Amino acid sequence: MKRYILGADIGGTTAKLGWFTQEGVLLEKWEIPTRTAGGQDVLTDTLRSFRLMMEEKDLTSEDFAGIGIAVPGPVREDGSVELCVNLGWGEKQVKEEAQEALGMPAAVENDANAAALGEMRFGGGQGCKNMVMVTLGTGVGGGVICGGRIVSGAHGYGGEIGHLLIHPHETERCSCGKRGCLEQYASATGIVRTAKKMLEDSGTPSVLHKTDLLPLTAKDVFDAAKDGDALAMRVVDRFAADLARGLSYISSVCDPEKIVIGGGVSKAGEIVTDKVKACFDEMVFGRQKETVFALATLGNDAGIYGCAGLFL
Amino acid sequence: MKRYILGADIGGTTAKLGWFTQEGVLLEKWEIPTRTAGGQDVLTDTLRSFRLMMEEKDLTSEDFAGIGIAVPGPVREDGSVELCVNLGWGEKQVKEEAQEALGMPAAVENDANAAALGEMRFGGGQGCKNMVMVTLGTGVGGGVICGGRIVSGAHGYGGEIGHLLIHPHETERCSCGKRGCLEQYASATGIVRTAKKMLEDSGTPSVLHKTDLLPLTAKDVFDAAKDGDALAMRVVDRFAADLARGLSYISSVCDPEKIVIGGGVSKAGEIVTDKVKACFDEMVFGRQKETVFALATLGNDAGIYGCAGLFL
Repeated sequence: MKRYILGADIGGTTAKLGWFTQEGVLLEKWEIPTRTAGGQDVLTDTLRSFRLMMEEKDLTSEDFAGIGIAVPGPVREDGSVELCVNLGWGEKQVKEEAQEALGMPAAVENDANAAALGEMRFGGGQGCKNMVMVTLGTGVGGGVICGGRIVSGAHGYGGEIGHLLIHPHETERCSCGKRGCLEQYASATGIVRTAKKMLEDSGTPSVLHKTDLLPLTAKDVFDAAKDGDALAMRVVDRFAADLARGLSYISSVCDPEKIVIGGGVSKAGEIVTDKVKACFDEMVFGRQKETVFALATLGNDAGIYGCAGLFL
Repeated sequence: MKRYILGADIGGTTAKLGWFTQEGVLLEKWEIPTRTAGGQDVLTDTLRSFRLMMEEKDLTSEDFAGIGIAVPGPVREDGSVELCVNLGWGEKQVKEEAQEALGMPAAVENDANAAALGEMRFGGGQGCKNMVMVTLGTGVGGGVICGGRIVSGAHGYGGEIGHLLIHPHETERCSCGKRGCLEQYASATGIVRTAKKMLEDSGTPSVLHKTDLLPLTAKDVFDAAKDGDALAMRVVDRFAADLARGLSYISSVCDPEKIVIGGGVSKAGEIVTDKVKACFDEMVFGRQKETVFALATLGNDAGIYGCAGLFL
């Protein structure tokens, strides 16, 4: 009897693994390091870890509805991957390999999309059929859900919102090769970059002129802003305006009911959603303003929840 | 036997009506003026015209799979409208009224979305499941299709791409009340506005410094550009860059396979798709560049074809 679902969110450093009931209750989760050198071990290690867990619990493939796998890159409709730099993969039949190794159905999804699906099913976006999840970490990722379905797009670039053009006159390059992408301003890295520039350019006293030897972080900026530091508040306002601009574009294309903000930056809390929503409302019109902003609630588990969601 | 479908694309000046086979072949089309004053006659006139046609052809409601109706405003999931300024409507149960009057199933859709559906089924977007239709007329409208389904959004603002923010420092207001919207640059009106500004600001000789008494049109600009007029070419380049920017945003959200350009401006032909595609490719990355640009082929009939498509 198919009572369980497996979920694996494979990242460049670790793979997060989860064992779920068919109702989506997380029974157990664990992590393994990803050996990305050469690429051949990543998926094998992940599947082996699941097999060991199944043996240990005395479960067979018959007990599982399937395994969902999230990977950091575009995924084709047939569950294969053309290129996934972060895992050291070129062409790889991920779905097929997983099905053969575990003897159960497999489904493969982009990690940002899986996180969006997880938040929609079990987290900050519950009850929504039209939802966007934005992940603000080292980069900016996005998952767009319309009518309950993930928008992958024709070439797997659906929800690639980190590369929305925000400032055409930017001089520094984004990791994608273009200039002025949302990711350059709204990621944790981008926030620190803005803060450093403002510190250099401005004579304003600020607690961000740090005297200790630790590197400046996005958390420092938000903490200082909450304490009323004028320069930090300006950095946060700049971040909010740039992110809101990107989100206004998404709204004009697919008009979500809710926008869920997750990733490391979202740990600063409601200052993020409040500031961004205020800017957003200035940039849209009519009932677009009814779009609700919420913080993600599943943290790093959003991906594995989304993987499980592929079989619910 | 249900052999036919009816389609009505109701605009502020005329309603376009069509009689289709169940295979989507247009058997007959005609237009009636829309009496929008007060709003109470628009739908009644449309439905009466269909009833007269049915009587004339000796057809009953039993012969029809249904009627699709396109209206110029947001439509709720239940086929009702909250407000449709161009037709003089406030709250209106469009679907219900049509079903009662004609005794057949009715479906209601926003007109830009219906046009997109029409082009996908029968026009420039045939064979695509992920497609965007952009209509460049007096304004800029859009219809976004993901996985074969129209993206209406949570509040009916899906595909409202005319109000994507392109130039934040714009001083003139858009019809929506905001400043710097795509519509201000990429509509026929916007192109003329750009041309007039460039004519004023520049000493460049141009055939667009017209000596006759007719007002300048977007067609004049494209004709002059095709003839090599330097200033007109700059206007077209500006238009192409601004429209491409908006389309790059759509691409980063939903990654369409094809973007179909229609409306009056598209009559200028391949100069539009060629110029916009060249700019677009500079603004996106990876396989987004594989997105194909095409001209719409159904002209003013796209809407009624889309209405018929709602019952195919």
